[in-house]
Amino acid sequence: MYIGIDLGGTNIAAGLVDDDGIVLLKHSVETKANRNANEIIKDIADVVDFLIDESKAGKSNIKAVGIGIPGVADEISGEVIYCVNLNWENVPLKKPLEELIKLPVVIGNDATVAGVAEYGAGKMKGCKNGVFITLGTGVGGGVIVEGKAYGGSHGVGSEIGHMVVGENFYDCNCGRNGCLETFASATALIKYAQRELDLDRESILQKDSRQLNAKLIFDGAKLGDELCIETVDRLIHYLAIGISNLINILDPECFVIGGGVSKAGDFLLEKLRSKVDEMKSFSSIRSGRIEIAMLENDAGIIGAAMLGKFNG
Amino acid sequence: MYIGIDLGGTNIAAGLVDDDGIVLLKHSVETKANRNANEIIKDIADVVDFLIDESKAGKSNIKAVGIGIPGVADEISGEVIYCVNLNWENVPLKKPLEELIKLPVVIGNDATVAGVAEYGAGKMKGCKNGVFITLGTGVGGGVIVEGKAYGGSHGVGSEIGHMVVGENFYDCNCGRNGCLETFASATALIKYAQRELDLDRESILQKDSRQLNAKLIFDGAKLGDELCIETVDRLIHYLAIGISNLINILDPECFVIGGGVSKAGDFLLEKLRSKVDEMKSFSSIRSGRIEIAMLENDAGIIGAAMLGKFNG
Repeated sequence: MYIGIDLGGTNIAAGLVDDDGIVLLKHSVETKANRNANEIIKDIADVVDFLIDESKAGKSNIKAVGIGIPGVADEISGEVIYCVNLNWENVPLKKPLEELIKLPVVIGNDATVAGVAEYGAGKMKGCKNGVFITLGTGVGGGVIVEGKAYGGSHGVGSEIGHMVVGENFYDCNCGRNGCLETFASATALIKYAQRELDLDRESILQKDSRQLNAKLIFDGAKLGDELCIETVDRLIHYLAIGISNLINILDPECFVIGGGVSKAGDFLLEKLRSKVDEMKSFSSIRSGRIEIAMLENDAGIIGAAMLGKFNG
Repeated sequence: MYIGIDLGGTNIAAGLVDDDGIVLLKHSVETKANRNANEIIKDIADVVDFLIDESKAGKSNIKAVGIGIPGVADEISGEVIYCVNLNWENVPLKKPLEELIKLPVVIGNDATVAGVAEYGAGKMKGCKNGVFITLGTGVGGGVIVEGKAYGGSHGVGSEIGHMVVGENFYDCNCGRNGCLETFASATALIKYAQRELDLDRESILQKDSRQLNAKLIFDGAKLGDELCIETVDRLIHYLAIGISNLINILDPECFVIGGGVSKAGDFLLEKLRSKVDEMKSFSSIRSGRIEIAMLENDAGIIGAAMLGKFNG
């Protein structure tokens, strides 16, 4: 058994998870993010102890504790390099927690963890190499290579959202131009539609122009609204470039798309698959299948636990 | 010991190579590329037999035979998917050759093989994860992950040259726009300079405008010629985007740059290192070092042999 921790700015959500990714018991406490890191780490340790005691699982049956971080986590050193929600910069997490709980700890960023969840118990199950892409406020990625979450030599790989795939009309938060995140996130959809609406483009969106979201834009595209279709197709185009780049570099068995934008489901999937096919250098080359993520609410807990399983 | 074969359109160059990548004996025959594939494969078998007999190495001491292909090679199925120089499409190579020589055969594309050479006996030695980028007529790549040449799930990964990194004024041979190859190859340098010369830009290159090559352009940049500097800086800019993308995805310990353009040496290297540094999302993030390839003439033979060592 494993314990998975989804460390967020609001809650520390945790669960006892079996080898197949089934959550056996859950527990959650408030993060109170404005506290000192040591106090938060102490609370994580208490949550781990609570799950072990409450479940009567027996500490010796817990093989590892995995933690997903909403930021940049160095899986090798065990430090959180950067986490806006917690206001952490270069905070050691693995070592102090291991000292408290006397169990092996593995950390990873939240997109990696969501990818590991899909690999352990979702749509990526059975793939030796796979890429999880989450399309939300930003774009994150989780790369599985040879059955393990791949973090690279300095623990900071899999940052797919900052792959440059073109030139964009606005810069990325990272300071560069053309990052996948600025083309394929919900934010990117909204920014593009907003820009066009501000130019007085006719669209079903004009009535909601002050409260745009990805769902409104996808719904408009399904109804045949020209601006909505253009906005969605632009996302599809650049996401397909990103996926083609990943095919050319990693050639995985499957891609799994998660995050808020993936709620567009088959409408997104069909357009995306056909665009990626269109972009192949050689039509005879086989490439990984593309799917929509399957796990929702507990993905953070399951994935963190599975990170303990595969990378622990 | 291993045997490495560099299969080219002109010659089948082969060598007996020891575990450290030292070439002990070489032999080469003409490819006569317009023949039937089976005849060429028979000749490869004869070259292998010749090296074993001539060296008195003893067949049982040969652990594997590696072959580098100037095209797309599926390392898993052992088929050459596409090779212009040999006019091969979906030609099985591994299996028929293994039947002839009764030794394990591993195939890979020539850029992968050159990368493996640097990993086994050159500038990438000791790196667990590394990326070799060859800048020649096109751009090729060899990716080492956890000490093995990484070919992906369908044997066609590491095609770094077709990673899209921007928008370009001409399309790539693969039919798409914005491939790294169209920005960072010798061909790309020449095409850009040529376009500017055709617009009557003042430059030291005007006198050689009908026989441009990468060396002339780099030499002009070193002398301070404005168009040459602009052309080189454009290559550096997009190559740095490509490397940054690879840092964000693979985060390797090192990058090694080979191929004709790499002859520009430190002049290229210093500009490239500083541009990649400039593009980092977080200055505190460590990333792989960048070096110029070290092996030259025998890289194809050594790399093919080392492919047998690491992937055999």
